[in-house]
Amino acid sequence: MSGAADSAPVGVFVHERALCESNDVGAGTRIWAFAHVMKGARVGRDCNVGEGAFVEGGAVVGDGCTLKNGVLVWEGVTLSDGVFVGPGVLFTNDRAPRSPRLPEASARYGDKSWLARTEVGRGASIGAGAAILPGLSIGAFAVIGAGAVVTRDVPEHAVVAGNPARPLGHACACGLRLARGADGGDVRECASCRKRYVLRGGTLQPTT
Amino acid sequence: MSGAADSAPVGVFVHERALCESNDVGAGTRIWAFAHVMKGARVGRDCNVGEGAFVEGGAVVGDGCTLKNGVLVWEGVTLSDGVFVGPGVLFTNDRAPRSPRLPEASARYGDKSWLARTEVGRGASIGAGAAILPGLSIGAFAVIGAGAVVTRDVPEHAVVAGNPARPLGHACACGLRLARGADGGDVRECASCRKRYVLRGGTLQPTT
Amino acid sequence: MSGAADSAPVGVFVHERALCESNDVGAGTRIWAFAHVMKGARVGRDCNVGEGAFVEGGAVVGDGCTLKNGVLVWEGVTLSDGVFVGPGVLFTNDRAPRSPRLPEASARYGDKSWLARTEVGRGASIGAGAAILPGLSIGAFAVIGAGAVVTRDVPEHAVVAGNPARPLGHACACGLRLARGADGGDVRECASCRKRYVLRGGTLQPTT
Repeated sequence: MSGAADSAPVGVFVHERALCESNDVGAGTRIWAFAHVMKGARVGRDCNVGEGAFVEGGAVVGDGCTLKNGVLVWEGVTLSDGVFVGPGVLFTNDRAPRSPRLPEASARYGDKSWLARTEVGRGASIGAGAAILPGLSIGAFAVIGAGAVVTRDVPEHAVVAGNPARPLGHACACGLRLARGADGGDVRECASCRKRYVLRGGTLQPTT
Repeated sequence: MSGAADSAPVGVFVHERALCESNDVGAGTRIWAFAHVMKGARVGRDCNVGEGAFVEGGAVVGDGCTLKNGVLVWEGVTLSDGVFVGPGVLFTNDRAPRSPRLPEASARYGDKSWLARTEVGRGASIGAGAAILPGLSIGAFAVIGAGAVVTRDVPEHAVVAGNPARPLGHACACGLRLARGADGGDVRECASCRKRYVLRGGTLQPTT
Repeated sequence: MSGAADSAPVGVFVHERALCESNDVGAGTRIWAFAHVMKGARVGRDCNVGEGAFVEGGAVVGDGCTLKNGVLVWEGVTLSDGVFVGPGVLFTNDRAPRSPRLPEASARYGDKSWLARTEVGRGASIGAGAAILPGLSIGAFAVIGAGAVVTRDVPEHAVVAGNPARPLGHACACGLRLARGADGGDVRECASCRKRYVLRGGTLQPTT
């Protein structure tokens, strides 16, 4: 096992108490204390892998992502570029987990057919302590509230929260909630960055 | 304190960044980085103690259990054989916690009468990030959904989810959900392993 | 970076696998394995900083607090004296988080105007795995149930639970739940420590 900074990929900061066994980590990425990037994990450029975070072999993390403390990214999880994963967020990859060493269940773990994949779109944000059930897709720029338990796909730009998570509205690419327009129509404009969107069939899309 | 692998019980793998201070760990068990098995903890054979997991003195973990990353098993918690504990699952053992160094509460911590025990039956599964309130019993082969907050006892083979956790149905010993039989009656057959069960007074039991 | 016990503030125990970079930690405080108290963090006297806990620069922890395993205390969070923070509790400090390296959001992270502060009053208890949304105040001796997602201010002595957290009743300074008086009136007396309170405008206050 390679551990400390002296064996890390070029241009990657690995804290002396972190473990980085992957050679597929992009330049500018920082891996903090007690974090672990396993062999076979792929992490892009300019990411922040927070303290105690864990990226398993077979997981893919895009460029410019932020994984806060204690985030666990399993095999089968793919994060696009610029994703924010809040502290203690839990991904999952098995719809019917049992201990593989339980005789009644061990046959299921003979191959990887139990593995359910998760996709998180560009720029999405997942709030602290949210749990994402297996086999789901979270759209670009979606916002998952802290403590949410996500049991269904989340459309792009949607805001969801609760257990199970339910739709609360929409968010701009910059992160701000989008209020309904003064005319009550389907157009939304961000009060901060002035980007404009239109609701089409329940999904928010940029107007330009 | 004994730390690294060279002082571990015979046949136990202890990662060089883990701590194992217990001498009551069974052969074949693996303890991963940043995990800690304290003195006085008992862990059975062929277990997997995931990265960052913590097993306190006075906790008991059966044979063939899987503790995923960050699981915390406190004094007073007993896991039977073959239990799956998902990432970030939180057990508890105090019904009315205060900081023991708060003058108004310190009298309560003079002895261990505050300690409430938790029992988890053989082959049960606890989903990612679930919290189990103190003093509860989780039946054999029960399935706790990810993010559930368990406030009541859970019968054997029951599936529960939500905050607070509510019954959703039943699961086979192999982990699969059991659909209601075609005849609408009380018999359930697993679509995967073909094990048969019958509902008796709300509790599912194997027919053989 | 200063790491091991030999560079810790006087009278502070720092486990050999912990990191303590702050020189503002009070005597009698213990910092356990894989925990990290950053430079610029302030931790009072006689605290217990549990395994894997993290206290960021700019966070303030009072005297006699208990931070159980895996607690994350961010910049902007202030805990008064004698607070109990259960295992895996998640504070937050950004109402609209995005990855700062996402081009659409990076402008927001040019200064600290995104930072929302959290205050926790003396002797409060936060149950395992609860998430506290940004910008909130939790009153003295309040009790937050395990797994709660707190989205509003919590009054002193209030008990809340659920996602979102809702009021369940009141608790004594010693931690015990306070039952409604036999006369159905606004006076509450603790069955354990006999302290008396009166409800005034929905808030519980000691009668003496």
